[in-house]
Amino acid sequence: MGDSLPRTVDWAGNLDGAIEMIDQTLLPGELRIIAIRDVETLWEAIKVLRVRGAPAIGVSAGMGVVLGVRDAATPQELFDKLSHTCDYLASSRPTAVNLFWALDRMKRKAHSLSSLPLAEIKAALLAEARAIRDEDARMCRKIGEFGKDVIPDGGTVITHCNAGGLATSEYGTALATMFCAHEAGKRFSVFADETRPLLQGARLTAWELSRAGIDVTVMCDSMAAQLMSDRKVDAVITGADRIAANGDAANKIGTYGLAVIAKAHNVPFYVAAPSSTFDFSAANGKAIPIEQRSEDEIRLGFGRLTAPERVPCYNPAFDVTPAELIQGIITERGMISPVTEEGIARILSAETCVEPVNR
Amino acid sequence: MGDSLPRTVDWAGNLDGAIEMIDQTLLPGELRIIAIRDVETLWEAIKVLRVRGAPAIGVSAGMGVVLGVRDAATPQELFDKLSHTCDYLASSRPTAVNLFWALDRMKRKAHSLSSLPLAEIKAALLAEARAIRDEDARMCRKIGEFGKDVIPDGGTVITHCNAGGLATSEYGTALATMFCAHEAGKRFSVFADETRPLLQGARLTAWELSRAGIDVTVMCDSMAAQLMSDRKVDAVITGADRIAANGDAANKIGTYGLAVIAKAHNVPFYVAAPSSTFDFSAANGKAIPIEQRSEDEIRLGFGRLTAPERVPCYNPAFDVTPAELIQGIITERGMISPVTEEGIARILSAETCVEPVNR
Repeated sequence: MGDSLPRTVDWAGNLDGAIEMIDQTLLPGELRIIAIRDVETLWEAIKVLRVRGAPAIGVSAGMGVVLGVRDAATPQELFDKLSHTCDYLASSRPTAVNLFWALDRMKRKAHSLSSLPLAEIKAALLAEARAIRDEDARMCRKIGEFGKDVIPDGGTVITHCNAGGLATSEYGTALATMFCAHEAGKRFSVFADETRPLLQGARLTAWELSRAGIDVTVMCDSMAAQLMSDRKVDAVITGADRIAANGDAANKIGTYGLAVIAKAHNVPFYVAAPSSTFDFSAANGKAIPIEQRSEDEIRLGFGRLTAPERVPCYNPAFDVTPAELIQGIITERGMISPVTEEGIARILSAETCVEPVNR
Repeated sequence: MGDSLPRTVDWAGNLDGAIEMIDQTLLPGELRIIAIRDVETLWEAIKVLRVRGAPAIGVSAGMGVVLGVRDAATPQELFDKLSHTCDYLASSRPTAVNLFWALDRMKRKAHSLSSLPLAEIKAALLAEARAIRDEDARMCRKIGEFGKDVIPDGGTVITHCNAGGLATSEYGTALATMFCAHEAGKRFSVFADETRPLLQGARLTAWELSRAGIDVTVMCDSMAAQLMSDRKVDAVITGADRIAANGDAANKIGTYGLAVIAKAHNVPFYVAAPSSTFDFSAANGKAIPIEQRSEDEIRLGFGRLTAPERVPCYNPAFDVTPAELIQGIITERGMISPVTEEGIARILSAETCVEPVNR
């Protein structure tokens, strides 16, 4: 993970500044930073996946709240705008829980400061949004340290979609385990599912890993089973967009099928995600809403028609991997394994929080 | 299956005629018939998948032998050209056994007629190539009749790649079951995997089924597991490119993973293929060569770079589904189930050959 990579999402300048983010729809062809100065533009950026990945969406939403309230002339107007901005941004994408988590955190912060002067509330909200970003970066680093041991020296791992620096404020979740294993001097091979329809694996994961000097090969999503019968695969590691109380994990469409295939080949399947990805209001995966996206992502995804225009397309953006298929969930507080309510409680209760061992 | 569909592959005219085929690389955007008058052009057409699908490749190869020998001035020259043409066409694609089967059949035919005048040998070879085509069409119809009962009225089936009229001389193998079920008045839904990297499902299967008035929806290859948890799926039906003596079946990459996912959801998985797809010289799937295709099919498949240029791609064209994952193999001689050496012998021995029941 080179320092030369610009930050995925950041706030530039003071309160009158802007969100700056990599426009991920242009990768790997072009690395362009766009500045976002209003909430509508941010909503569109989240919707069309200029910024994507549950943690990065959360960071963006936190900063979006600042965009939404910074012009308020009175405290009353600020709280009105706060409420409106949060409702509006919450409508951009339904599955990633970090979006709702970040908006809630910004609301709570604002309400806790309601007696302060207007300028101080605004400054505190910007500081809070930046804190979400910085905490996310620290969490990712810890996930990488806790998770790097699942990658053996000389091994082969598969990942799906992009759970890398581009999906977070930096460093990533699933890819953090690979960056940390690489920094620890291990040599290993990564096979990145291209991840139809929007090819985040081919476009983003392959780009990030090869920049970092990690051996990465792109394959179509349909090839993992053949790879597992071709050669020994040591682990599958993916991110998650929302994890239910029982450990069922929603992630990019294709993850569930990959987990089923891994199980059939006795390959351990890991999810890497910060604790903010847990949604304890969802008892299990059935309670997680699955975003359905445009049919044109499938039939027009590459600029020309790849299916007859009159034929409908099925395009769920996510699927849910049941807890029993998950060997472990790698969080910034440690590895949850086995993935049960008890196992989750043991790691996520603050008292048991441990630092990853650096070795 | 409208009569309005031109034949996938046919011989036009007399001995000085040409192979005419649909250029499938242009579908669904354009329906163009190309005429092929020399063996080199046919080799290229097979290699780049203008014609594809194991049975259609076999039919094309049979006609290609006619192209290769028709200018011979002496019987000696004819047999030299025959040998050279067969070796050359055999190098176009390694996995589909029908290619080798058709070339062998043409060679045997020629050798059985070696005492005849040159013109008669040539005429007989053209007749033989046409016979391969016509037999293929009849076999497909029978496969459809034998297989249509696995599709329940009101049901949902999944197919992968294109095992339709475009993969055969007409009517198809896996899709023949759907065409016959449709003709029998059943209503049902088909989900067609788009089938990366070359999108035969999105481009060809969706096109064929929707032309026939069958309810078809395209999905990405990664979506079958989510579909099976979303709704009841009654069967998965695919074609095959080569079936080993024990019933292990090679088919388009992604088929094996789909079979694993079907098993995990208790969805029966069927292979539909003519008996010429069996290769009894291959004891099991390990003996079937798997074609590796160009990396650019994955990263340049849509006219622009979808992965970093320096990153390698893994592109096996086929995978092998083990017999134990296959509920039944639907042949023109009947349904092989269970898929065991005994079950295969019972159906494929000529004595037990039965006519499908028309109901």
